[in-house]
Amino acid sequence: MQHNFKLKIMTKNTENENNITTMKALVFHGPNNIALEDKPKPSILKATDAIVRVTTTTICGTDLHILKGDVPSVTDGRILGHEGVGIIEEIGTNVIGFHKGDKVLISLITSCGSCRFCKKAMYSHCLNGGWLLGNSIDGTQAEYVRIPFADNGLYLLPPDVDEEAVAMLSCILPTGLECGTLKGHVKPGDIVAIIGAGPVGLAALLTAQLYSPSEIIMIGHDDNRLEVARSFGATTVINSTDGKATERVMELTQNNGVDVAIEAVGVSETFGICQEIIAPGGHIANVGVHGKPVELHLEKLWASNITLTTRLVDAGSTPMLLKMVQSGRLDPKKLVSHRFELSEILKAYYTFVNAAKEHALKVAIKNTSTIV
Amino acid sequence: MQHNFKLKIMTKNTENENNITTMKALVFHGPNNIALEDKPKPSILKATDAIVRVTTTTICGTDLHILKGDVPSVTDGRILGHEGVGIIEEIGTNVIGFHKGDKVLISLITSCGSCRFCKKAMYSHCLNGGWLLGNSIDGTQAEYVRIPFADNGLYLLPPDVDEEAVAMLSCILPTGLECGTLKGHVKPGDIVAIIGAGPVGLAALLTAQLYSPSEIIMIGHDDNRLEVARSFGATTVINSTDGKATERVMELTQNNGVDVAIEAVGVSETFGICQEIIAPGGHIANVGVHGKPVELHLEKLWASNITLTTRLVDAGSTPMLLKMVQSGRLDPKKLVSHRFELSEILKAYYTFVNAAKEHALKVAIKNTSTIV
Amino acid sequence: MQHNFKLKIMTKNTENENNITTMKALVFHGPNNIALEDKPKPSILKATDAIVRVTTTTICGTDLHILKGDVPSVTDGRILGHEGVGIIEEIGTNVIGFHKGDKVLISLITSCGSCRFCKKAMYSHCLNGGWLLGNSIDGTQAEYVRIPFADNGLYLLPPDVDEEAVAMLSCILPTGLECGTLKGHVKPGDIVAIIGAGPVGLAALLTAQLYSPSEIIMIGHDDNRLEVARSFGATTVINSTDGKATERVMELTQNNGVDVAIEAVGVSETFGICQEIIAPGGHIANVGVHGKPVELHLEKLWASNITLTTRLVDAGSTPMLLKMVQSGRLDPKKLVSHRFELSEILKAYYTFVNAAKEHALKVAIKNTSTIV
Amino acid sequence: MQHNFKLKIMTKNTENENNITTMKALVFHGPNNIALEDKPKPSILKATDAIVRVTTTTICGTDLHILKGDVPSVTDGRILGHEGVGIIEEIGTNVIGFHKGDKVLISLITSCGSCRFCKKAMYSHCLNGGWLLGNSIDGTQAEYVRIPFADNGLYLLPPDVDEEAVAMLSCILPTGLECGTLKGHVKPGDIVAIIGAGPVGLAALLTAQLYSPSEIIMIGHDDNRLEVARSFGATTVINSTDGKATERVMELTQNNGVDVAIEAVGVSETFGICQEIIAPGGHIANVGVHGKPVELHLEKLWASNITLTTRLVDAGSTPMLLKMVQSGRLDPKKLVSHRFELSEILKAYYTFVNAAKEHALKVAIKNTSTIV
Repeated sequence: MQHNFKLKIMTKNTENENNITTMKALVFHGPNNIALEDKPKPSILKATDAIVRVTTTTICGTDLHILKGDVPSVTDGRILGHEGVGIIEEIGTNVIGFHKGDKVLISLITSCGSCRFCKKAMYSHCLNGGWLLGNSIDGTQAEYVRIPFADNGLYLLPPDVDEEAVAMLSCILPTGLECGTLKGHVKPGDIVAIIGAGPVGLAALLTAQLYSPSEIIMIGHDDNRLEVARSFGATTVINSTDGKATERVMELTQNNGVDVAIEAVGVSETFGICQEIIAPGGHIANVGVHGKPVELHLEKLWASNITLTTRLVDAGSTPMLLKMVQSGRLDPKKLVSHRFELSEILKAYYTFVNAAKEHALKVAIKNTSTIV
Repeated sequence: MQHNFKLKIMTKNTENENNITTMKALVFHGPNNIALEDKPKPSILKATDAIVRVTTTTICGTDLHILKGDVPSVTDGRILGHEGVGIIEEIGTNVIGFHKGDKVLISLITSCGSCRFCKKAMYSHCLNGGWLLGNSIDGTQAEYVRIPFADNGLYLLPPDVDEEAVAMLSCILPTGLECGTLKGHVKPGDIVAIIGAGPVGLAALLTAQLYSPSEIIMIGHDDNRLEVARSFGATTVINSTDGKATERVMELTQNNGVDVAIEAVGVSETFGICQEIIAPGGHIANVGVHGKPVELHLEKLWASNITLTTRLVDAGSTPMLLKMVQSGRLDPKKLVSHRFELSEILKAYYTFVNAAKEHALKVAIKNTSTIV
Repeated sequence: MQHNFKLKIMTKNTENENNITTMKALVFHGPNNIALEDKPKPSILKATDAIVRVTTTTICGTDLHILKGDVPSVTDGRILGHEGVGIIEEIGTNVIGFHKGDKVLISLITSCGSCRFCKKAMYSHCLNGGWLLGNSIDGTQAEYVRIPFADNGLYLLPPDVDEEAVAMLSCILPTGLECGTLKGHVKPGDIVAIIGAGPVGLAALLTAQLYSPSEIIMIGHDDNRLEVARSFGATTVINSTDGKATERVMELTQNNGVDVAIEAVGVSETFGICQEIIAPGGHIANVGVHGKPVELHLEKLWASNITLTTRLVDAGSTPMLLKMVQSGRLDPKKLVSHRFELSEILKAYYTFVNAAKEHALKVAIKNTSTIV
Repeated sequence: MQHNFKLKIMTKNTENENNITTMKALVFHGPNNIALEDKPKPSILKATDAIVRVTTTTICGTDLHILKGDVPSVTDGRILGHEGVGIIEEIGTNVIGFHKGDKVLISLITSCGSCRFCKKAMYSHCLNGGWLLGNSIDGTQAEYVRIPFADNGLYLLPPDVDEEAVAMLSCILPTGLECGTLKGHVKPGDIVAIIGAGPVGLAALLTAQLYSPSEIIMIGHDDNRLEVARSFGATTVINSTDGKATERVMELTQNNGVDVAIEAVGVSETFGICQEIIAPGGHIANVGVHGKPVELHLEKLWASNITLTTRLVDAGSTPMLLKMVQSGRLDPKKLVSHRFELSEILKAYYTFVNAAKEHALKVAIKNTSTIV
């Protein structure tokens, strides 16, 4: 991820500049090996596809997992990225809801709309789709991207929309909302604890407020992010580095515990805190991606009437989130801490990898150079 | 638990037969030590109490846990039992829904009806009640029992009701329904697996059918109980002694897994089966009483959109169950495999302790000798 | 609708028998004017279409409304029918879930799967579909039918399925279930009243039992149909010809009223009964097609905590109903009272129009003569 | 309602000042006839009663209905009022949740907590309670009030609570929330229309925002109140005096209509607007008290998948509302436009009766003179 690497790419691009069929794209070449390269511009493969010129994209925590080599479905040569906003360049003959030139939000989820999982709104489990972009098919960290089942994977935007705000609705906001807030059944008057103050935890924090809990306790390791959480609406923040988070929460709640605990880290320790602080009748909503089994204290919890949930984001909440953003009642733009050009995407990755040091939340990557 | 022990008790009783203030009761005296003894007849302590003459009672799996010494809240001298049917003998001045002479069902749960948990219908967590009978106050395995908050702990029965059928609504049926069927969100067309074919598992089986699953798979260790399960409506039964239950379920479901898995044993192995067979979007309802932590495979399940629940029975479903029994659409009487007099209650315990050998499900204990 | 008319058609058909591009079809030519005619066989128009050879179809109450001229969207020349089972003859290049030769159930609802109504499972309001078959596009009372958005409008059947039973899932069963049972929130222990003992009321009766009400009161005008209702599971039947239905229901319910009232007629009088018998907290589910406003007694009901619903059938429940039929727990075949060949369809209409006299419920129309 | 009237009362009181058994109270003496009089101070009648010294009360729209003679259950001599805050003066021997000296909120609803309606949280239909205060038993517009089933009818308050804010939780806020917002299923992103900008409509407006609709349209006749509505969070206000409210709403919603229509007036015209503007799948929540039947346009709505609800307030939401007020996320105090002493209660009535002219919303009536 050195600067000279990026320069090399720029040169390569210059050589192809008259060739309309190539584009710049961030390509994965195995663990810790990504490059901005020239790749063939995608084209319509099925009548339900659309080609979108990406104008804004971003980087997800999952992209960092890919970078580390933790996601075996992502293979050498894959263009990364599953978030973004763009302009429709071309549509297949069976796309009915969109036209060339429409500004659109790209959902991380590809869904057929017809299979038994889609009929239950479990789009992430779609038998003909799921999370494909930047995973098993090429993604959005490029000048152009092919979107299968475009009628289900795109959302129409007004031309003057704030692209950075809306790009947060591709993945991070629906994840916080669906896996955290909704699965946790946050409701007015609840005491909610969110464990993990990264972008997903902050997305849970923003969306939990749509349901008016009376208190939101944010637990994390990084004072900077905890201050961000406070500015985003957390009523209490707890730095759990001292191992006393449970104790603090129980004090705050007169030993009653919390109504909702949202796990947004993905490790045994934080899942353990959730179990310790949950009130009888409460909900533990797991959002974190876990790599190992955890211990579940059924010897205590069997009698606690608790509900524990897991979920992949389905992104079915995107239309609602769009309405909230457009009405001004939800402002996801404040998640964007840094901005880059697509040509600077390796620098953007560097910033996001070193989020704590760089005080980074989400990074916006703009593509303003494409000739149209 | 020898027969001559029981005879001794009978003699003792004879000596007191003119003394209206004593009664026969099954008393706990520490691990593996119970006796049928003379105890003072209970009297009204609060204006909201009722005294009920118990005409039918039964023994719960929890009573066996008490017998083993596993329930520290039960101390020496306690009259056991939290299930039963009887006749109201006396009411406090503030009891508004009942009269002397009413035939009533006794709920295992004592609830004030006013605290924050009662207002959420979480009666088992009542701040002024919960499971008290045969636990922290004297219970129903006696000629008489005092019922606190009688308006919330009793249900009016018609005089000609089948007492054995209705006695199953004190604890076992609400447990199977609330902790298994309802928490598992059983719905029409579902494939349901119940792991554990004891009385609680069978109660889940009976009540699950109120919501019309298309298939119910019963998994257990005892061929006799599995045959009972089949006669109660299980569409498939699996003896899991060979360790191949998961394999069998996945075959039966074309590798899709089940919509609902009800854990009715309380050990790590059976909880593990639930995790292996649950379909994406499915519900695992824990009913079993666990003594140890279990391993939760979040490294697989984090992406499965599953819901896992725990629950103490609240018995809020009892009025509905009464309607179902009275309309003839639910027949819990078939859970009763053996019948005894109160004077034979130690024999009843013996039968229930040796359920597999005795082919016992639930035992009915009648009190026909009380002078009224 | 005389017999000689049918003969004329048969002759006409004979003349075309070698012409593969024509087929027999029941065609609407304005009020009270339908005929079995030769029509061009349909062909694929869009890549998401399928052509189905219809092997079993039936007639809906809505077809009789069309026949009377009450449905202005149905114009001269339209092939009627929106129910049926068949074999896929041809698929468009974008159909992903089906193959030529598959046996399929045809849903009355055409849905794109992508619009804002489809995303809410309100398929009947689909912006690109809805109830189209036998309405604004040609329908199923023919040898062949074109199904738009085939992936959403067809359901795969096993080859040996009972076609008559399954044909009841195109429209009548989902209507009774979705508009009556589900909107009425029927739940275990409820007292349900169904007003109207025609096919839709009987479908509500069959499907209500999936949710285990303790009592189902069927109210109608026709003793024969009421006896059918009793044999289908109604616990009480009331012939309301004497105008005393309300009085009878209130007696039966100790003046408490019913938990759920399902209106399956569509006139003021029956809607009035629903308002009179509904208990506080109850649900009135309107299923009937109303031609005029009704009086709503808010001067009484404002304080009754009731819920009143209306609904078009969306047919989203069809997969669940298929599972219930295939598991043997639901038997919609008993709705089929008469059977005809497609060549006899005018006779079938005659029977269905004169349902009371003919003791008809639903009629099955088979097409066994098509050369394949 | 002259000042000398008040003086007369005060004099009368002075005469009795050594007599601890009398108190000042607002008494109903038939249509348009109320007076501030000396009445006997209430005492404990049942062991579950409490006597509360009222420190703040208010007047409800229902009190004006009583004043007009529209509520036959209210008879000559009745002390009016069902809202307020006070200090517990005395408790019955069976009250378990409160002590003498506790500051408490008085709920408008009296409930036994045990009957079949209480078990369903339908407290307003309690077989042993319901709306009794200021109706069939003496109410809160007095120095003291007897509260039956005190454990269910009172809520503990911190000593330093803002009494005016909290007094809005006795009736008006739960009414707007339960009958409007909750029955209307307001959810994030919804477009909500509230018809009627009186105190109940404004309470619906305040509470609807707990569920984050994207737009709230307030429709009324009084420009002053509509401006208040705007300041309370309405995104659009419409003065419907010109009869064009429907037209305006349909324009604003691109002819799609609204997701939720809350009727907060109680007349045919406003109920008609709700029917005209409701979107397919929408909810009409009736809050208004209707005196006459209304016309329900089932000839249009039968196909619209709408849900129409009625409800009496049950006040089960009061604990949640208290949490919201205490966390500072809900500010019902802004409903209080005028303040009076108990001695001035007739003037308070005058102001509330002439609300439009006086620009009155809710009036707070303080009792600061009682000798304690």
